[in-house]
Amino acid sequence: MSLLVTGSIGVDTIETPVGRRDNVIGGSAVYFSYAASFFTPVRLVGAVGEDAPQELFKVFENRDVDLSGLEIRKGSKTFRWHGSYLRDMNEAETIQVDLNVLAENAPKIPEAFCDSRYLFLANTHPVLQQQMLRSIKQPKLVVADTMNLWIQTERKELIKLIGMIDGLVLNDGEARLLTEKKNLIQAAKEVLSYGTKFVVIKKGEHGALLVTDKDTFVLPAFPAENVVDPTGAGDSFAGGMMGYLSTQGHVTPATVKRALAYGTCVASFTISDFSLGGLQSTTREQIDQRWNDFKQAMSF
Amino acid sequence: MSLLVTGSIGVDTIETPVGRRDNVIGGSAVYFSYAASFFTPVRLVGAVGEDAPQELFKVFENRDVDLSGLEIRKGSKTFRWHGSYLRDMNEAETIQVDLNVLAENAPKIPEAFCDSRYLFLANTHPVLQQQMLRSIKQPKLVVADTMNLWIQTERKELIKLIGMIDGLVLNDGEARLLTEKKNLIQAAKEVLSYGTKFVVIKKGEHGALLVTDKDTFVLPAFPAENVVDPTGAGDSFAGGMMGYLSTQGHVTPATVKRALAYGTCVASFTISDFSLGGLQSTTREQIDQRWNDFKQAMSF
Repeated sequence: MSLLVTGSIGVDTIETPVGRRDNVIGGSAVYFSYAASFFTPVRLVGAVGEDAPQELFKVFENRDVDLSGLEIRKGSKTFRWHGSYLRDMNEAETIQVDLNVLAENAPKIPEAFCDSRYLFLANTHPVLQQQMLRSIKQPKLVVADTMNLWIQTERKELIKLIGMIDGLVLNDGEARLLTEKKNLIQAAKEVLSYGTKFVVIKKGEHGALLVTDKDTFVLPAFPAENVVDPTGAGDSFAGGMMGYLSTQGHVTPATVKRALAYGTCVASFTISDFSLGGLQSTTREQIDQRWNDFKQAMSF
Repeated sequence: MSLLVTGSIGVDTIETPVGRRDNVIGGSAVYFSYAASFFTPVRLVGAVGEDAPQELFKVFENRDVDLSGLEIRKGSKTFRWHGSYLRDMNEAETIQVDLNVLAENAPKIPEAFCDSRYLFLANTHPVLQQQMLRSIKQPKLVVADTMNLWIQTERKELIKLIGMIDGLVLNDGEARLLTEKKNLIQAAKEVLSYGTKFVVIKKGEHGALLVTDKDTFVLPAFPAENVVDPTGAGDSFAGGMMGYLSTQGHVTPATVKRALAYGTCVASFTISDFSLGGLQSTTREQIDQRWNDFKQAMSF
């Protein structure tokens, strides 16, 4: 079923112990869309400046990603991020960030996209996330991501958003910052009390945690020996998760669990190369194979 | 089958965000023995000073733990450790340590214990670990633990020990220190190259990793909401693992995996109270129930 994502589209410069890449394609919506497109058609909504590199469009050439919601804004510049993992492969250090077009008005969701049933609101200002959510007529499943900046500056609006959605995806540091609880299960339960049905806490190389009011599901990361570039792992995880869920037609604890395992596997391909390289050299068959390997690697 | 453990027996003072306990029972061999005794009879070998508290003996009163290898050394003092988890529940900060009897000669393994088939060499000087290993006639499975101190000061002897044993259990920081590899899978493979058959890397609240030359098994920690005192979690993990394995009669990838899950569950009881309180208020039935819950909590 129709899956819509709104989020950032950017140009990244990345340094990791393996090497450095300048001006490569990145952004939460880009990783998400590519990852989800292994499972289902994707509608991408986002904005770039008139300096957007041509490679951005080439990346999606043979993918089932509808770019009619991709706005190329005249007089604006594309979002740029320069990050380093030289100190810690599990947490990026931002060396420079130029919000550019992300600091302007939110992109408009095309009328033709307003019937989308599955919606992923990648990290942006929670008021914009609320606006975009309201323009979708009958969503079946709405999941959002967020980041430290909004937790610190727009806490009230973020908590309001959380009460409007089905699931929140965030990383362990963000969960602790949002709830002021160190224990992640306690943190997740606090987030549930804001009115969402499930919380997924991403722990990077340590896996993920799903908490609902009835259930807790723990998942290690896929045991990856060669990590080249962790950028986009969380967005790919969300993309794999939402992509799989949107093919299932119903959202149950069982489908969400399987979806998390798919997200984990897709993310493990993302981190195996710089930028989108890991996803670009992967097939749905390889993802399914890894899903089975992963299930095996944690069964007892 | 007969399971022997050699390691420390001590008196701890512990500070955690939940509270503080002064002069409580602790030590690697104590946690290990209690945890393993849910599964199988245990032979404990260790030394204390003449100041050893009476509670130590009371702790094992109704457990199937043979204390005839527990040496009460005249003129010596018991090992004491004062640790704090106020900064980080996942890593103890040592406030004070008095090695006392641990800095003297190793305890002697009683003749009657030398037929033990399962042996766990809890953390001590690797030369002493080698000596104790040599006094066991026909061990079927030998697993050792170690710590930063020996990695830094007795690296050569430690690597020699690793070549003599079947499995090494160590935590993530130790694995990285020993191998100078940041990636834990790479670190585990490096340890395998020293001549052991399997490596278990404990990641505290993030679970554990088992690596053999054929297989990688990843396991999250049991999702615990209320952590009171993490002291002894790693030793309880090892105790549950070895306790279960020694009842199986054969060591296969499948039994080792199930054993790791048992270790995880036993450790989750340990951290629910100070000192041995969590283990003391637990039954084998509760451990089995948690094992099933844990299997459920990570199945998809």
